[in-house]
This record gives sequence, structure tokens and C-alpha cells, in this order.
Amino acid sequence: MINFSAVAVVTIDGKIAKNKNHHTNWSSRADKIFLKTQIEKSDVIVVGHNTYNVAKKNLPNHIFLKRKYIVLTSRPKKNVFGHNVLWCDPEKVDLLALVKKYNYKKICVLGGTKTYTTLMKQNLINELFLTIEPIIFGSGLNLFDGENFSAKFRLRSIKKLNSLGTILLHYLKLN
Amino acid sequence: MINFSAVAVVTIDGKIAKNKNHHTNWSSRADKIFLKTQIEKSDVIVVGHNTYNVAKKNLPNHIFLKRKYIVLTSRPKKNVFGHNVLWCDPEKVDLLALVKKYNYKKICVLGGTKTYTTLMKQNLINELFLTIEPIIFGSGLNLFDGENFSAKFRLRSIKKLNSLGTILLHYLKLN
Repeated sequence: MINFSAVAVVTIDGKIAKNKNHHTNWSSRADKIFLKTQIEKSDVIVVGHNTYNVAKKNLPNHIFLKRKYIVLTSRPKKNVFGHNVLWCDPEKVDLLALVKKYNYKKICVLGGTKTYTTLMKQNLINELFLTIEPIIFGSGLNLFDGENFSAKFRLRSIKKLNSLGTILLHYLKLN
Repeated sequence: MINFSAVAVVTIDGKIAKNKNHHTNWSSRADKIFLKTQIEKSDVIVVGHNTYNVAKKNLPNHIFLKRKYIVLTSRPKKNVFGHNVLWCDPEKVDLLALVKKYNYKKICVLGGTKTYTTLMKQNLINELFLTIEPIIFGSGLNLFDGENFSAKFRLRSIKKLNSLGTILLHYLKLN
């Protein structure tokens, strides 16, 4: 059973970042701990090219390099990091076939906007872990950005992560 | 003590509507009941011109007409509905002074995007009741849309409104 799990942290107004270079260092310590456990449970991380670059720039090498990535891009590169990175154009490659080929079962989708949207539109996302931080950015990058799609979910659980009111919502996608 | 309470219903991806003509008939019955109680507790409703028009078109007359409104617009009209509606350009009129003048204590701010943003930027909002429906629109109108502002909140309570997982979050604005 292959499971695509989207994990995201948003503000009250639904922003995942202030702009495309904004690393998610604005999230709470409690969310960072949760994210780390989700990543450690996963076989592979799916991210967009920009999110990959921002993570590469901001994460310590010993953490960044031990993880496996599928990086979505319209201009796939050769695999310069050995077995760590698969570059993939989701318009041309069947992502489900790709994860099957590599025997990846637990897929952690970490964004950004275009990656969440592409996988949601391809009906690949099975569940969503959404952390909401008690702040507002006013403007910024949305969780999704695509016309002509919608989806329904069922809330499986709510968890309060800290005293200020960071919450973690776990949604299951309905078919 | 004057209290500005913003009340909004959003999708998982933080949208308040699919477009500017989209009435909030997409929200759950549980949210509609909550909204009604919030409105009934209030002295006056603050809405933008477009939200006012959409509500006027979609609500039954006996409900629409018994409520008091302050309608924010850059082109204020005369008060064609007698005492029910005050038209106000928030760039020119001090909204706090206006509600004091009319002795309004409990102000219910119902949107849309521009109204929530204007009042948040003017630091008038004291609390936010945010209902999250377990659906995604993919695109649409955001809760806020403004550069150069941010705000912090404390979560006061979480309430699950129905079995599918509509939740109601109550946030208090931090200074």
C-alpha cells in the first residue's frame, strides 16, 4: 500500500511562506519536531525544485544529505547526488509508477505550492497533515494554486502542539 | 469596552470564496448556525460593499433587513435603508469613532478580503472566529490580502462542529 502524505505548515491566513525564498524557520519548535518525525517515517520526500534549493541552502549537510528526494521540475537534471535525488518532470513522468519502481511506500510531500497542487490534481494525495501557526502574514504563497480542482476531506484528528495555540490537523482525502 | 470580532469560514487552503460573486452557501449547516448566533449577539455588522450586495441578493428580506450594517466602500451612498445601513469610506472615516458615536459595542466583521484586511491593518480586530471546512477550492479569495502587515494571535479554543470535521477556532489578537 503506497501512501502519499502531504505535510504543510500554514499561517491562520493559509500561507506557507512570505515569498518563494522564505524558508520555514517561522514555524514553531513543536511543528519542526513533528515534521522531523514525519520525514523519518518516510521512504522518500517529494519537493519542488525551489523548495529543494531553499532546503539545501538552509539545512545542515548531515541532515540534508541523508534524506532521499524526488524533485519535481520541468527541467530534470542528471542525478548529481548519487542515489539521493531523482529529478522528475511530473508532466512527463508517471509519479506513481516511479515510486513503485523504487519500492517507495511512504511518500512525504513537502511542497511548495506547485508540488502540492500538482499531486492533488493528479489525485495522488491520500492524507494531509496541516499545522496552523497562530499568526498572519497578510500575503504570501498559498498552499494550493490551481484552477478547476477541488477536493473533500475528513478530519481524523486535532492536536494542540503548544500553549500559544499551534494546532495540527490530520485530514484523510475522500474519494 | 468595544469589541471587533472577525468571523470567517475558510476552506483547508484558506479561501473564503471561489470568486467575488460566490455566496457562502458552501459552508456547513453547523457553521451557518454558529454564524447566526454570532450575528444575533452583535450590535452591528461590518462588511465590504461587495459582500453586502451578495448578502442582499442571497438572504431572505426578513433576515437581511432586520440587521444593522456598516458598509465599507470608497464611494459612500446616502442611507437608502433608513437607519439600517451606514456607508463609510474607511480611508476617510475613523471607524472606531463611528461605532462610538452610534454606541455600538459588539461589532461583527464579516468580510470580505478587503474588509478583513483593512480592519486588521488598522489594528481594530480583537478576536477571530475561524471555521475551517474540510474541503479545498484550489484557488479563490483569500482571508487577507495586504502587503506589509502581520499579526500574532493566541488560540483560545477549538471546537469540532460536525462528524465530517468542520472545526471552529477562536483566536485572540495579541498586541
